Amino acid sequence: MKLESYSHCPHAMAALREALAVLNGKWKFPIMMALRTGSERFGEIERRVPGISAKVLAKELKDLEDHQLIKRHVHPGPPVAVSYEVLPYAETLDPILFMLGDWGKQHQERLAGSTPPAV
Amino acid sequence: MKLESYSHCPHAMAALREALAVLNGKWKFPIMMALRTGSERFGEIERRVPGISAKVLAKELKDLEDHQLIKRHVHPGPPVAVSYEVLPYAETLDPILFMLGDWGKQHQERLAGSTPPAV
Repeated sequence: MKLESYSHCPHAMAALREALAVLNGKWKFPIMMALRTGSERFGEIERRVPGISAKVLAKELKDLEDHQLIKRHVHPGPPVAVSYEVLPYAETLDPILFMLGDWGKQHQERLAGSTPPAV
Repeated sequence: MKLESYSHCPHAMAALREALAVLNGKWKFPIMMALRTGSERFGEIERRVPGISAKVLAKELKDLEDHQLIKRHVHPGPPVAVSYEVLPYAETLDPILFMLGDWGKQHQERLAGSTPPAV
């Protein structure tokens, strides 16, 4: 499908908006990547995602849980502990993540002037 | 590259963060798609991107211009008119856009329960 026809299809645009709403912002992918090596507690995720505040992390984890991308576990203890696990479903985002990474790399080089502008 | 090793490579993570910083939020893709059928004035873009405020649109257009994805044209007039044009470089994002759209579609179906959970 050509992009021009894509942008005139309400269903295609709604699907794109859905994906962007789920992945909105700069934190979702880094959080899911921080969880890829195993189930983690809140404080450990916070350490692995530099720059995120506790308040934003809590909101982002809730969003990811609502979208069935991660699972929250409560360990009764004592002491009570909460951990988060990325679900296999999140792997369906891997191809997008790799493409974003590749694009980001060439874009960094382009802005740095190491790649002559193609436009 | 496996995702686990990807998440342990500072360069790969920096590239991913760069891409997410550029495409941050839910407006960049819809704005660029609104410009795909040709150069447009501010008010027309605003109409084509339902739900966006003039303030946010102005900021997003400036961001896209800074990242060499669109170009701003000032027509001296009178009356002075400003229009925006998407640059060919923005087409490098098309594969990501299509993948996001496909993922969003299956995610909508999944949340609606029409696809049995795979997890």
